Amino acid sequence: MGRVLFSKRLDNIEPSAVRVILRVIGKSNIISFAGGLPDSALFPAEEVKRACEKVLEESAYRALQYSVTEGVEELREELYRFMVRRGVLPGHPRDDEEILVTSGSQEALFLITHVLIDSGDIVVTERPTYLAMLQILYDHYAEIVDIDLDPNGLDTYKLEEVVRSLQRENKKPKFVYVVPTCQNPTGITMSMDRRKHLLEIAETYDILILEDDPYSYYLYEPIDVKPLKYLDSSGKVLYVSTFSKILAPGLRIGWVVGPREIIQEVAKAKQVLNLQSPTFTQFVVTNLLREQVVDRRLPLLAEHYRKKRDAMLNALETYVGDLADWVNPVGGMFVWVKLRRNIDTMNMLQLAVEKYGVAYVPGAPFYPSRPEVNTMRLNFTYPSVDMIETGIRKLAELIRELST
Amino acid sequence: MGRVLFSKRLDNIEPSAVRVILRVIGKSNIISFAGGLPDSALFPAEEVKRACEKVLEESAYRALQYSVTEGVEELREELYRFMVRRGVLPGHPRDDEEILVTSGSQEALFLITHVLIDSGDIVVTERPTYLAMLQILYDHYAEIVDIDLDPNGLDTYKLEEVVRSLQRENKKPKFVYVVPTCQNPTGITMSMDRRKHLLEIAETYDILILEDDPYSYYLYEPIDVKPLKYLDSSGKVLYVSTFSKILAPGLRIGWVVGPREIIQEVAKAKQVLNLQSPTFTQFVVTNLLREQVVDRRLPLLAEHYRKKRDAMLNALETYVGDLADWVNPVGGMFVWVKLRRNIDTMNMLQLAVEKYGVAYVPGAPFYPSRPEVNTMRLNFTYPSVDMIETGIRKLAELIRELST
Repeated sequence: MGRVLFSKRLDNIEPSAVRVILRVIGKSNIISFAGGLPDSALFPAEEVKRACEKVLEESAYRALQYSVTEGVEELREELYRFMVRRGVLPGHPRDDEEILVTSGSQEALFLITHVLIDSGDIVVTERPTYLAMLQILYDHYAEIVDIDLDPNGLDTYKLEEVVRSLQRENKKPKFVYVVPTCQNPTGITMSMDRRKHLLEIAETYDILILEDDPYSYYLYEPIDVKPLKYLDSSGKVLYVSTFSKILAPGLRIGWVVGPREIIQEVAKAKQVLNLQSPTFTQFVVTNLLREQVVDRRLPLLAEHYRKKRDAMLNALETYVGDLADWVNPVGGMFVWVKLRRNIDTMNMLQLAVEKYGVAYVPGAPFYPSRPEVNTMRLNFTYPSVDMIETGIRKLAELIRELST
Repeated sequence: MGRVLFSKRLDNIEPSAVRVILRVIGKSNIISFAGGLPDSALFPAEEVKRACEKVLEESAYRALQYSVTEGVEELREELYRFMVRRGVLPGHPRDDEEILVTSGSQEALFLITHVLIDSGDIVVTERPTYLAMLQILYDHYAEIVDIDLDPNGLDTYKLEEVVRSLQRENKKPKFVYVVPTCQNPTGITMSMDRRKHLLEIAETYDILILEDDPYSYYLYEPIDVKPLKYLDSSGKVLYVSTFSKILAPGLRIGWVVGPREIIQEVAKAKQVLNLQSPTFTQFVVTNLLREQVVDRRLPLLAEHYRKKRDAMLNALETYVGDLADWVNPVGGMFVWVKLRRNIDTMNMLQLAVEKYGVAYVPGAPFYPSRPEVNTMRLNFTYPSVDMIETGIRKLAELIRELST
């Protein structure tokens, strides 16, 4: 079977370090700063068990049967209420908006891209940006225009320049993809001024915004920002989120809310793809939302992860303060580290795993263009505080070894 | 928001009657012969509940966490054993084969197509064939060559002609898609001679076969056929199946087994799509397989559905014997009916639902080319025996009304 058999579609996707590392985790005793895994110790196993029992006692016929592509109606209702409580929606959704349940938020990103993007269509992203979203865009042969981040988030002035310059060629981005709060991988949060400017641009030039919001649930410092979706008065924002980081990734429940016209196309695509997300897990999550299990646990998660973030920041300060720079994230799961020496962290990874027993995600694949190879993304939610301390110490040894 | 925003990719997909009808089901009291729903009364709710409890008591940390894209290792092992018990694989898989867990078998069909098909690539299907597979192929701009079915299944002699003729143009189908046992929608089962011939062609001309096998689990008459995968000695067959019809569709667990080289590409595509199927439902199904819940229930399902099939065949004989012809299916979930008068069943559907309270799937969308509009697919597994009798009587009234 020759390579000629295969579509070229996936050929330009780099072997994902995340995926390779997911295989290693659990199989060995390395300390992993890779992946974006929540702490297993915080899973509400007892509550999930009770929810399963309740669902199977009261609604087994429906919960085990096929259901509609858009998602179980009760779950969609609970999701609306959850988003209102969380300040994502100002109130119950408008008539021209719709929600759709997906298998993790990544599937929402895939389906939106699948519906909106034909080969060569332009998409704007932050630089660097979420690795999996880049793979989705590569998979659809999108033309990516990446715009630098600064400490206030996406440089919207540069964005406006880009949009104007495209306009002169009669072109327009199909959408702008942003992770405005605790961005992946950098941890940067977009300021309110930038958010408002981004929405102005979207309205003025009639451009969709794809807002990916998995991380705003745990903030370690009070910040004064609102979701783009909340600020969106003209139906330009597709808002995507997930329960993977706040409940359990193994349930794979994500969702998207946005203009009905687009969500209906996304539903058609999902029907073609896998008909629907599992009815059973949708019922289970509905129950957990009704029982306030998700809401009640959020402060606990924030408190727990704040300690881990602080442990990582302290360890970085102690061990690599003279070798690297990093962003202090106000929330989320990651610290983005840039080595002062021009060491290629992709080349360094094998040594890190095999000799030092530490894993991370090299930074280069997060860049749509002009990769900065001396960057890396460190996750602090999965490892314990002790492991964070030990892991950073070992990583520092390696960096020091390579810096001399 | 103008239409220009949207990809043309899905524009040529007819609004799926199946999807429209899934919305109606449960909301009204129509008798539904549409969809491919198993009987909710047969779901092993108690066993699923026990499995959930066991999983959450013994493995909550793993079952609620992320896992590998290919599927939970224990489930993949149980699937191999299940396929050996079912006569799909001659023994434990060869080194050059691999398995991957998907969200229903439809996702496997999507991913395989996504990996193998670029715009304009040729795919051979039966005529008529599974509606959702056609949508997947349209979605990928495949060029479909459809080959007639006769009572022995796909006409493999015609297939060989087609392949030779393509060869003269230096072309080749990327794969041949078949539902060899209890085909959807016709209920036809491919004979052993044809199966062997199909595999010969695959080997001679180096063509992949995509074998879709959701229905062979309940056969109502003893038939002497083996899965193509069992007969495949040269790694040409990708075999796809699902627990949707034999356990519960609401769990959405399907799988594909085939040449490792292809499955690895499929895994990459799934990683991009939605990272993995839910870990939790994979653990639950693993437990149900280990406890023999699936195997033990198969004879019960066959017995139950045989009665329903017989009820439908009897009702058809009684009420529309002079108005229609149909295939007696040896297994599966459907009777394929062809009206003697040239009545367009698509036009008839609204009247059927609104005036007669009966739903079915019109036959035309199952045809890649030259649709026979006087056909329809009737499901007999979802409605009760009484509803089958009443529904066919009402449908007969309508057909009689339109025939005069």
